[in-house]
Amino acid sequence: MIKTRQYIKENKIRFLNELFEFIAIPSISSDSRCKTEMINAAEFLRESLINAGVDRAEICQTNGNPIVYAERILGDNCKTILIYGHYDVMPTEPLNEWKSDPFKPEIRDDAIWARGADDDKGQSFTHIKAFEAMNKCGELPCNVKFMFEGEEEIGSGSLSGWCKENKDKLKADVILLSDTSMMDEDIPSITCGLRGIAYFDVKVKGPNRDLHSGLYGGVVANPINVLASMIAKLTDDNGKITIPGFYDSVNEFSDEFRASINSAPFNEEEFKQSIGITAIYGEYGYTAIERRGIRPTLDLCGISGGYTSEGAKTIIPSYASAKISMRLVANQNYEKISEEFVKYFKSIAPEGVQVEIVSLHGGQPYMADHNSPAYIAASEAVTDVFGKAPVPFYSGGSIPIISSFEKELGIKSILLGFGLSSDAIHSPNENFRLSMFDKALETIPLFYKYYAEK
Amino acid sequence: MIKTRQYIKENKIRFLNELFEFIAIPSISSDSRCKTEMINAAEFLRESLINAGVDRAEICQTNGNPIVYAERILGDNCKTILIYGHYDVMPTEPLNEWKSDPFKPEIRDDAIWARGADDDKGQSFTHIKAFEAMNKCGELPCNVKFMFEGEEEIGSGSLSGWCKENKDKLKADVILLSDTSMMDEDIPSITCGLRGIAYFDVKVKGPNRDLHSGLYGGVVANPINVLASMIAKLTDDNGKITIPGFYDSVNEFSDEFRASINSAPFNEEEFKQSIGITAIYGEYGYTAIERRGIRPTLDLCGISGGYTSEGAKTIIPSYASAKISMRLVANQNYEKISEEFVKYFKSIAPEGVQVEIVSLHGGQPYMADHNSPAYIAASEAVTDVFGKAPVPFYSGGSIPIISSFEKELGIKSILLGFGLSSDAIHSPNENFRLSMFDKALETIPLFYKYYAEK
Repeated sequence: MIKTRQYIKENKIRFLNELFEFIAIPSISSDSRCKTEMINAAEFLRESLINAGVDRAEICQTNGNPIVYAERILGDNCKTILIYGHYDVMPTEPLNEWKSDPFKPEIRDDAIWARGADDDKGQSFTHIKAFEAMNKCGELPCNVKFMFEGEEEIGSGSLSGWCKENKDKLKADVILLSDTSMMDEDIPSITCGLRGIAYFDVKVKGPNRDLHSGLYGGVVANPINVLASMIAKLTDDNGKITIPGFYDSVNEFSDEFRASINSAPFNEEEFKQSIGITAIYGEYGYTAIERRGIRPTLDLCGISGGYTSEGAKTIIPSYASAKISMRLVANQNYEKISEEFVKYFKSIAPEGVQVEIVSLHGGQPYMADHNSPAYIAASEAVTDVFGKAPVPFYSGGSIPIISSFEKELGIKSILLGFGLSSDAIHSPNENFRLSMFDKALETIPLFYKYYAEK
Repeated sequence: MIKTRQYIKENKIRFLNELFEFIAIPSISSDSRCKTEMINAAEFLRESLINAGVDRAEICQTNGNPIVYAERILGDNCKTILIYGHYDVMPTEPLNEWKSDPFKPEIRDDAIWARGADDDKGQSFTHIKAFEAMNKCGELPCNVKFMFEGEEEIGSGSLSGWCKENKDKLKADVILLSDTSMMDEDIPSITCGLRGIAYFDVKVKGPNRDLHSGLYGGVVANPINVLASMIAKLTDDNGKITIPGFYDSVNEFSDEFRASINSAPFNEEEFKQSIGITAIYGEYGYTAIERRGIRPTLDLCGISGGYTSEGAKTIIPSYASAKISMRLVANQNYEKISEEFVKYFKSIAPEGVQVEIVSLHGGQPYMADHNSPAYIAASEAVTDVFGKAPVPFYSGGSIPIISSFEKELGIKSILLGFGLSSDAIHSPNENFRLSMFDKALETIPLFYKYYAEK
């Protein structure tokens, strides 16, 4: 891969400029005003893939945002790697907390700052460029297929069905993706576990209009008070989730396994300082690493109701709403957990209010096999570039589509992410460290090489 | 008062047109963008009072919004009535629920529809017009003083101090105001009790930025979950408020008194239907009338935190906020209750979050003497116009300034309100029934007459 490495070095400025063009498209999938931008981002990828030298690239329509598919087939005697990524990004609120415009990427402090710089435009793009380099230099050792979706941040609603319909076209030996983080640049890691998710919008409805809190206060169930009490009833004082049956399928790991994942470095003081909190919190009986990686959680992502502007408006609001997210672990089933949540949440509503629950998205948890040839190839490539062997990492995040790939296509995935926890994905001031961008471009071709050799 | 009544009849259309001009000024005191409108509304009142024939009218500057003062002095041998009202109004959100523009008053279904139609522009204005009629017809039997403030909806921050400074100027035998409701047009009532209020903005602060709910979920105290649990801890399953010491000074009334206030009509089915709820709610051991009139309450008026727009954003928010209002009853002291609230609310915050509490306003509860000459005069006037004697009514609302009047000026107030519960004050589609507007204009001069004769 000597020529490939040289090509990457010579073209790095162009790669970054192209990435900046990609990032500048505000492709926020949860915002219905961004429909055109979704198409523009997909089109940008298609053109990039054509320029990189694929045999063919196409925009595939779905009921949601289009999927970009491309392939470069060398022959039947080569292994086939299916690259997955997503071109949609998270919303940018609160906008006033960004130090620079989220859609005007800029380089400062040796990082790229923008929404999508890491998740997942920056990381996805390294795969196109690594391919381009190998391909143009005649060093491509595997067949490659690409699929990029535009609905990852809203639950990948179209991708699963599309995979099912295109099972033959997507035939591959392994799926490779970069949509996760490493523990640190000094502690390279490969993600071996992902949490599942169940996400709900809930609404507690009381009176048919906002009421004067003096004239009605005392006789009307207040939707905010009620919603707060219902939320409080979802967890107990030990940080356990109280939904009946919630823990029934949770994998209780062996002491040996727990010891192995707890051997990863975790500095509580540094962690607290990095996010400005004075104490960590969580489920009784588990370490911070376990709470984040192999234990389920329930978090409120948003809440609203009544008067929230300046000053004091004295009302009992007509309704209150909240967004509730649960992270699930092996072997919880999000569909079963969703049913249990809905049943329990309705059961704890008092008389005098109505409860509406809408499931916004869901996905199964995933565990990888770190003894597979692909994992070993990834491990070797990381070792070459980072100078030490990667730690198997159980992430708290969710990429629900990973378990769908296994279900629909029968293909395992390798989660070779180059993000860092300081990248602030989903938050203001998202960024992607330039040295990690470089290392991604170096690691990916080595993965191809080692995997081809196995 | 025959000429007065005739004058009112002949000028009613003009009165309404003038009132509409007054209402059209969006004088929302809690909105800092409305500063000019506050001055315009005060100026409008000053001109109206001059046109009505006062000896002098002035705009009095304060640190907040100006107070309009005017007087018409017949002589020392006449009793003096001090009229109070307010020209500020509540905010209008949610705007999309209004059937017509809140600041373009219109008449439909025999009512005036607009923000302030009742509270308190409509009601205040009847006093100016009743005075104009008596004065122009030579039938004014009392000295009259007017004071209209522009901060009632935000806690009357300037009025109390202004009263103290102007004690001599404001000397009067009674204060008369219309800023309350009757039980119904068929069940005339005079308000004998008002609740006090203590209103807070609270904020629970967690991490220094919004975090990815997957990568951080399980180890970070989520400010929304925490705030919800803290709110839940403010009340118990019996609808009692759990703040230590909260009930210590609450007046426990005699069985006889409770029976008398419970003799007022209250149809639970009609009540539920009128606001679209399926069950009433409240403190165990008390009737609905008691819960609204003579028992304290704690209501959330607003809550916000995290992502509240369309779709699913998976974050642990950096903070969550709420607006908490308590209605207090005799003999609770809002300052003492406020201290106890702050102490308790901070004490129930878990490790890992910070709590900020801002007191937005407060006021003492009030109880009137319904054996006073002014109350009897008001009762006679209402009986003449409505055809039956008014019921003494203990309202759940708060007009904190009433107890300040007693404290600063040593003058008792008569709460002769002409609103109805269907007026939707503080809500979208506020309105004021035209027949109640007419009856106010008829009742006020009779009050002057009967009061002058006592």
